[in-house]
This record gives sequence, C-alpha cells and structure tokens, in this order.
Amino acid sequence: MAGGLVGSEILKIAADIRELGREGVEVCNLTVGDFDPGQFPIPTRLSEDIQDALAARQTNYPPSNGMLELREAVQRFYGRSLGLSYPVDSVLIASGARPCIYAAYRALVDPGETVAYPVPSWNNNHYCHMIGAKPLELVCGPKTRFLPTGDAVLEALPKARLLCLNSPLNPTGTAFDHRALQGICEAVLAENRRREQAGERPLYLLYDQIYWMLTFEGVEHLTPPQLIPELARWTIFVDGISKAFAATGVRVGWAVGPVDVIKRMSAILGHVGAWAPRAEQRATVGLLDDPEAIAEYHAGFKSGLLARLRGLYRGFAALAEDGLPVEAIPPMGAIYLTVRIAPFGKRTPDGELLETNEDVRRYLLDAARVGVVPFQAFGVGESGQGWFRLSVGAVSEQDIAAALPRVAAALKALR
Amino acid sequence: MAGGLVGSEILKIAADIRELGREGVEVCNLTVGDFDPGQFPIPTRLSEDIQDALAARQTNYPPSNGMLELREAVQRFYGRSLGLSYPVDSVLIASGARPCIYAAYRALVDPGETVAYPVPSWNNNHYCHMIGAKPLELVCGPKTRFLPTGDAVLEALPKARLLCLNSPLNPTGTAFDHRALQGICEAVLAENRRREQAGERPLYLLYDQIYWMLTFEGVEHLTPPQLIPELARWTIFVDGISKAFAATGVRVGWAVGPVDVIKRMSAILGHVGAWAPRAEQRATVGLLDDPEAIAEYHAGFKSGLLARLRGLYRGFAALAEDGLPVEAIPPMGAIYLTVRIAPFGKRTPDGELLETNEDVRRYLLDAARVGVVPFQAFGVGESGQGWFRLSVGAVSEQDIAAALPRVAAALKALR
Repeated sequence: MAGGLVGSEILKIAADIRELGREGVEVCNLTVGDFDPGQFPIPTRLSEDIQDALAARQTNYPPSNGMLELREAVQRFYGRSLGLSYPVDSVLIASGARPCIYAAYRALVDPGETVAYPVPSWNNNHYCHMIGAKPLELVCGPKTRFLPTGDAVLEALPKARLLCLNSPLNPTGTAFDHRALQGICEAVLAENRRREQAGERPLYLLYDQIYWMLTFEGVEHLTPPQLIPELARWTIFVDGISKAFAATGVRVGWAVGPVDVIKRMSAILGHVGAWAPRAEQRATVGLLDDPEAIAEYHAGFKSGLLARLRGLYRGFAALAEDGLPVEAIPPMGAIYLTVRIAPFGKRTPDGELLETNEDVRRYLLDAARVGVVPFQAFGVGESGQGWFRLSVGAVSEQDIAAALPRVAAALKALR
Repeated sequence: MAGGLVGSEILKIAADIRELGREGVEVCNLTVGDFDPGQFPIPTRLSEDIQDALAARQTNYPPSNGMLELREAVQRFYGRSLGLSYPVDSVLIASGARPCIYAAYRALVDPGETVAYPVPSWNNNHYCHMIGAKPLELVCGPKTRFLPTGDAVLEALPKARLLCLNSPLNPTGTAFDHRALQGICEAVLAENRRREQAGERPLYLLYDQIYWMLTFEGVEHLTPPQLIPELARWTIFVDGISKAFAATGVRVGWAVGPVDVIKRMSAILGHVGAWAPRAEQRATVGLLDDPEAIAEYHAGFKSGLLARLRGLYRGFAALAEDGLPVEAIPPMGAIYLTVRIAPFGKRTPDGELLETNEDVRRYLLDAARVGVVPFQAFGVGESGQGWFRLSVGAVSEQDIAAALPRVAAALKALR
C-alpha cells in the first residue's frame, strides 16, 4: 500500500513555488488551499482563547474522541445554524477534517468494495488507494458546474458502498443547487429502500461540507438530512474550523453522523492518534457558541475572499473578450475559482509546444509568475483538459491585479 | 476491521473513575498515562512560546511532514542528546507519537505478516488488529523486569516483519539494561545478515522511546544504533514531547528512521491528516534547542515523579513486610510502578470471591478508592495474574500517602 501511495500533487506544486521563492522570484501563488495569515488571520477571539487556555494549563490529554464540551458545542452549532438535531454521541472531534474522511473510509469500506465520487474532487483517489477500495469515478463537466446530479449517480449507486460528495466543491468553488442535491438524495433513499428489502448493507453518504460557511450571496448551503430527514441514518458530515475560520494550522475538525458509524470512526482515530490539541478544542467551544463573533468575522473574511475571486473572474472575462482562449465560472463558495486556459497547439516564445495542462501550468509559472493547479490534481484525466483551480487564500487583491496583465502578456506571446 | 476494533481498556477504566468523580467520590487515580497539569505543568518556555506563536499568526498549514525548522531541531536534539546522526529527511513530525506507531505499522507490515512484540506492552495488539497483522507475543515476566532478552526474541525473529520494543516500558516503568538490549540488537543484526544473503525483505525494529528522557538515577537510556551503528538501517524511533514534557494534550510527536521508511510514513500521515498544530511545532523548536531549559525542567519534573513512585514503592514494601500479598518492582523510568497484588482465593467483606485481576481492580476502587490498571490491559492473559500498573502523573505525594493506608485496610479486611 505505502509503496504505491503518492503524496498530494498540490503539495508538490506548492514545493515548486517555495523553491522559486527561495530563489527570490515573487510568484502570485494561487495553488494552495490555505491562507496567508497576513491576509486572513483567524478570529481574534479564537486566537486569544487558545492562548488563555494554554495559560490556564489546558495541556493534558483530551478524551480520544474529543472534549465533551466541544462535542456539545458542535451539537448546538449544527442545531442553530443548520437546523440539524443530533445526539452528542453523533459528534467526533479530530485533528482536522482530513482524519475524519480517512476514518469514514476505514470504518465503512472493506478492501475491494466500491466508492463512488465525482471528479474533479479532492483526494478520493488517494483514500481509495489507501483502503484498497475500488474507485467509481463520476466525471462531471462545466455544464453542471462540475457537480453531479441525481441522474449522474443513478447507475453508480447499486455498486457502491460509499458515495462521497463535497459542496462547496474543492477544486471548483461551485455548490449544489437544491434540484441537483434533491435528485441525488432521492436516488440514495431509493437505493437504501431497495437494499433494506433485499437485506443488503446500506449505502453511506460522506458529505464533506468543510467550506459550507463560505458561500457567497444568493447561494444557500444545503444538507441531505435537511432535504430528506431519513438520510441522517446514512450521512456522515465532515467539517471543521480549518477553512471557515482560516485556521488550517490549528487542527480542529469534526465528523457528525449516525452513532454506530461515529463510534467505529472514534475507535479508529483513538488508535491512529489524530487528536486535536486540547487548548484549541477548549477555545473552539467559545467560538462556536458566539454567533455574533462568527457573523462579524465572516462579514470581513467572506468579502475579502469574494473581492479576490471577483477580481480574478472579471480579469479572465476581460481576457476572453480580448479573444484569448480563456473562460471562468462564476464563484459560488469556498476559496476557489474555476478557470479554463486552453492555448493548446500554440508555441511559447521559446518554441515549446503547449499540449497538456501541465505544459500550461509550467508556462504560466515561468512566463507570468502565476501558480495554478491543473484539474488533473483532482483525479480527472482528459476531461479536465484546459481546466485549472485558482485559490485566493494566500494572495491580496493587489497581487491579483498585478498578475492579470502578466497572464495576458504571456498568453499573447504565444504563436 | 472497525467492527472488531476495541478502544483502549485504560480509557474505559478512566471513564469508570470519571463517573465516580461526578458522583462526588474522590479517587486516588493511578490509572491514566497522563498528567494533572496542576501537579505537572508543561515547561513555562513551551507554553509561552506557543502563545507567542499564536499571537504572531502561526495559524496556517504546516508542511504535512512537519515544519522544516522543527525537523532540523529534532535532528540537532538527537545529535546532541543521543549521539545519533541523521539527515533531516529521516525526521517526520506528527500529532503525537501514536500516529507515528500507526504509520510505521502501515508502512512496513502487509496484512498477514507477523509483528513480534513483548507483553505486557502498550496497544501492539490493537495495531496488529487494525493492520491485519499476525501478532507474535513474547511473554515476559518479573525475572527480566518484564522486558525481553536476546534469547527471548531469537525464535521469533525469523518469522517477523517488525519487532516492536519500548523502553522505558509502558506499563512497567522498567528499562533495558545494556546486556539485554545488546543481545536483542545482535539477534536483529544476525537475522538481517541472513535475510540479505537469502534476498529476503529485512526485519524492522520499531523503537518506542517516548519516555527516554524520564529515566531515574543510575539508569542510562540506550538505543539500538548506539550499540550497533548498522541497526540504524532498520530502526524507527517513535518519540515526542507528550511524556517528556508533560505535554500530552499539545500533540507534537516525531519519528526518526531510514529515509525510505520515513518517506512512506510521511505519505500515509499526509493523507490521514494526523498533523501537529503549527504554533505548537514552532514553539517546540525553541524548547529542543534550549538544553538549559530542558535540564531545569527535568530536575523538578523527574524528582516529582520519583518522589511519588518511591512513595508508592516503599508503601507497598511496607505492606509486604506486614504479610500482605503484595510486591513492587523498583522504578527505573517513565511514570509507572509495577505492583503485584495477589489476594486470590480470599473473600471481600461482602462475601465476593477474588479470582481475577479485574476482581481485585474493582475491589480496590470500591473499598480503597484507588484506581489501578491490570496488566491484562497490556495484552497479557494468565501470565499477568496479580500484576498491575500504577501511574503517578495525576496524583500528589499527599494523595499517595493518604491512599496507602486505605489499600492496607482493604487488603486486611479480606478473609
């Protein structure tokens, strides 16, 4: 298993850019799903409460499934913000959302069983490899903003043990609308009704909503149990503070789901040791229980993200009007913009032919000093040709304004 | 896998005691491998540096294998303190030592392969279950202070893919002497020479030294590569700040080993997401680079631990002199004391017959309000009959002084 495991492609691209940085080359880094704390610090209340918890000696072991007060705070938060009612034993705390995804795969999927997921999506291919699961990829394109629909999953569901969804979606920055998610939920319900009659094990739905607080005006985040309450029996939420509060390095995430599944996930993570630090758990209680602090923080945070995403979106729209081979999809949520850059068949001033996304990525990095991530890093092959993820968490509006003319010049220099 | 996985027995016993606490019953809690921060706070410098790092916005993603400056600090620390010379790519940072153990098992052992380990020991049985490995238990007894010898491992090595050792040992508080570890190292070397000639995959040695800084006067901590340098090719160290600096809830651990193995472990933990928080990583650099702060902290910390362990040891020795069926093994390291309490065949005042360690554990908790952990929680069966782990990280010397007469009274009340 370990020999065949590859690290995240995004982290490799990020390493490329760090290398350039060390050489003194300034890059507009649109690659990492992370934040520059200078641009986007964590909430003041969160930072101060962690420091206070440390000063108050909150330094010994938390319970392996998380501190009770934090599990209760997540319970209250989901009730208040999402209208979801769960017992506290449905909540598991971990060192980020990532361990929750891993634990769900490990708890639910035996080697050889099938996991269905749309592509592009984040790391499902890697988790399938680690678990020895059979991947069933649902290729999504720009017509559905790269998200699956009920029709698209229908054929896959009878074969699958687990269906993995993510909205708002990394890498695209797009989100489910009511109709698409309703269609998928109905298909899952129908499949599980059939399985119950046939005495088969149910299909589970891993619903990664790590970006759910980061949706933009007019976009409403929806959850499967909100649309069809019975789906709570088979839905495992993955969530945390990493993206919603720019706190990727603070390492507090959670899973919420059926008690029996959460119990198995807890047993796994208890031994794996992917536990969130105690002072950070303590401080997250105060943040989740403070709707005003959250609203105030998000007002600034989200307008900052949206300003950057719109700057990029408008910039690429202008390049398209100039006749350059680009296209952008309007941002709906998360910290990402989906852009098509398709100068294929052209040659660089150095005479190199641009044939693949990787060629384009390298050319933009060399010629325009702009770092982007090809959709191939998100499990797509040919269908991702021309498509890229642009992430805005680590750049300023000025960085973007300065980078767009460099992209234009680089594309105009092609022959 | 997940269905058959059981949580740590120790955590379950701890939950029993928390329940009593909620009912207002005060218990001398000698069960958890943890610290009461009121008794044993983390080093002041560590706490302040984490707070400073948070104030300085060290809140975004660390690299998935740990911050370079911390990996370099561990490299320097091992050079300075243990005389071990490793390249920085031999160092992996994780959210505690536990994820490092899990990653080593996952990276090195395929399902069906054999893992050899002494019992009593901590959680190797659980890791074998998670990985689907075949456990090969080397039963150790009081004659060798519950540690294996070269002779004891000889028969096991040809079958094993991985040999797991821990010194100072959880649960016993005893440590390898030169002769025993030398014998094991020679056996590992001979086995790997044989395998190289036969073209077989090597035997690896997981060396958990999480308690190595906590040895008491006259006890020298030893490592396999110090005794036989060539063993560095096959030794994976597991370590961290959790026990050495009473920082179990801070979640910073590390593995050090051959670059190819560490690389595979890094790929696994990258996807599992068991990452140490960034501010805590940053602060650990300063601590590891400050030998004076470490020495000053350990002077107080270790004398506090030893006073408690000696208090218990002398107390049990006095009970033995009184003719009670108890025995204690002198403390050498870690935070544990090994005690034999063997009133088997006697009856409690309520008329209950004491037949098993679990009977004795419950009786001591009910009658003496003292919580202890049977060796059965560490993978032993019958051979552990009568033996218990007593942990002193969460109690004061006064707690111990007050508890001993209660133990004496409870044992004297047996008929």
